[in-house]
Amino acid sequence: MARVVVDVMLKPEILDPQGRAVHQALDRLGLVGVAQVRQGKHFVIDIAGDVSGEQRVLLEQLCAELLSNPVIEDYRLVIEPESPDGGLAAPASGS
Amino acid sequence: MARVVVDVMLKPEILDPQGRAVHQALDRLGLVGVAQVRQGKHFVIDIAGDVSGEQRVLLEQLCAELLSNPVIEDYRLVIEPESPDGGLAAPASGS
Repeated sequence: MARVVVDVMLKPEILDPQGRAVHQALDRLGLVGVAQVRQGKHFVIDIAGDVSGEQRVLLEQLCAELLSNPVIEDYRLVIEPESPDGGLAAPASGS
Repeated sequence: MARVVVDVMLKPEILDPQGRAVHQALDRLGLVGVAQVRQGKHFVIDIAGDVSGEQRVLLEQLCAELLSNPVIEDYRLVIEPESPDGGLAAPASGS
């Protein structure tokens, strides 16, 4: 089971009102020194077996055309060859 | 400039209709072998200087109470000590 992680963020020159709201909330709640907050989307895609070259090309294309809007967003695609626990697509619990 | 990256995902036992829609779209567009897709939020927080112990504790608390809903979401917090380019909070361009 391979895990593909895609982060989609607004391009730096695009205003990010959600990130700005989070920035103001962090300030208000006492976190000092925050310079900037940007908010984006995080996709975790589990794929059976390893990711072939063909799948990788298609994934890049789908990231650029389906998961992000190339006019206003950048994406970053990371392929992790083996899901360590073979488990579900959620990060480690933070609580 | 330290960079704090927070990923917030629905807990594995919570249904994720957005992830399901993406899964169906990936299938339809020809990506074979997708087992599961989960969609969450990705925050990039740039902080001036290094992150102190006190800031780290507050960050954990704010992740658990502001950025995520602990009833239905898990978060993962990663502190990168130095932003490599000192730049803005966006991933590398994918296009």
